[in-house]
Amino acid sequence: MLSADPAWQLSLARVPIIAPQAYIAAMAKTPIRPTDDAARVLARSLMTSARFAALGVLHPDTGAPHVSRIAFALGRDGQPISLVSTLSLHTRALQSNPVCSLLVGEPPATGNPLAFARLSLTATAEFIARDARSETRDRYLKTHPKAQLYVDFADFGFVRFAVISGALNGGFGKAYDLSAADLAWKNRG
Amino acid sequence: MLSADPAWQLSLARVPIIAPQAYIAAMAKTPIRPTDDAARVLARSLMTSARFAALGVLHPDTGAPHVSRIAFALGRDGQPISLVSTLSLHTRALQSNPVCSLLVGEPPATGNPLAFARLSLTATAEFIARDARSETRDRYLKTHPKAQLYVDFADFGFVRFAVISGALNGGFGKAYDLSAADLAWKNRG
Repeated sequence: MLSADPAWQLSLARVPIIAPQAYIAAMAKTPIRPTDDAARVLARSLMTSARFAALGVLHPDTGAPHVSRIAFALGRDGQPISLVSTLSLHTRALQSNPVCSLLVGEPPATGNPLAFARLSLTATAEFIARDARSETRDRYLKTHPKAQLYVDFADFGFVRFAVISGALNGGFGKAYDLSAADLAWKNRG
Repeated sequence: MLSADPAWQLSLARVPIIAPQAYIAAMAKTPIRPTDDAARVLARSLMTSARFAALGVLHPDTGAPHVSRIAFALGRDGQPISLVSTLSLHTRALQSNPVCSLLVGEPPATGNPLAFARLSLTATAEFIARDARSETRDRYLKTHPKAQLYVDFADFGFVRFAVISGALNGGFGKAYDLSAADLAWKNRG
């Protein structure tokens, strides 16, 4: 509502010259909020707690989107890593075009699944050479100890996802765009 | 192992002319199994029980894959439906290019997430006109009663996903390709 309060007039001066009601309505329709530390912390916590992700790739034959499930862990530098089968479609797709998307953050078994936070990452996949995978292998097995059964099969290899950006949805109306820097953190042991 | 049993010789006659051991190894490396009724039933059950999905689209500005979460239900014809915000990136993407992918089938909270079944659908998104949505709205609200709060907002609309094909992963080494007919079933009330 309009007010004669000088402070209100001052804040109005910073916004586009439209009526306050229209401004409020326009803000409500802008789905992206300014990125703050709470958004950064929430996004990082979704990455830290994720054990799996929905991976979106471009189908190598058709170019259509293709979403599949992959196991998920974080490398020493905080970037996502996974162990993938060279027989799978997503691996063939990433070998053809490394640009991809990863969705992490699972809703609980009950409640509206859209009310819970999730993070869409855009990334570039990098395949890790067999003779350079020792550290990645160790970190991955800490998150996924059962992968010990097949981690050394010739058909499996590690991939690192270099994060380009993120889209955080913290629940209805709580959308944020995050940069690679927003999503990065210091190396941990 | 090779055998002098005539039945074994007969079955060998149906396979490519390679040594049995090499044939068995080649089969083990072929990730796609022949589609059977068990695979069809499993795929349909994943669709029937899904309340949400990971939606993969092509980003309307960059063409890169983008995965986000949407609510999921089935329409009267068994095709997936969702209620989406016209403010969201995925809606803008589908308006630009309707080809998409939907991943359904959530793993339980514990255990190896790759050991549990999931289904990747390839589909084309069709936006349902406001004046033709009554039946879709009713069915959607049966699955998502809390959506009553915003189902009639001007910013929300229904989308139907016409399924083109499916890739079922029933757990390690249990991959199947399914056609639209494999995934279809008779109309239900």
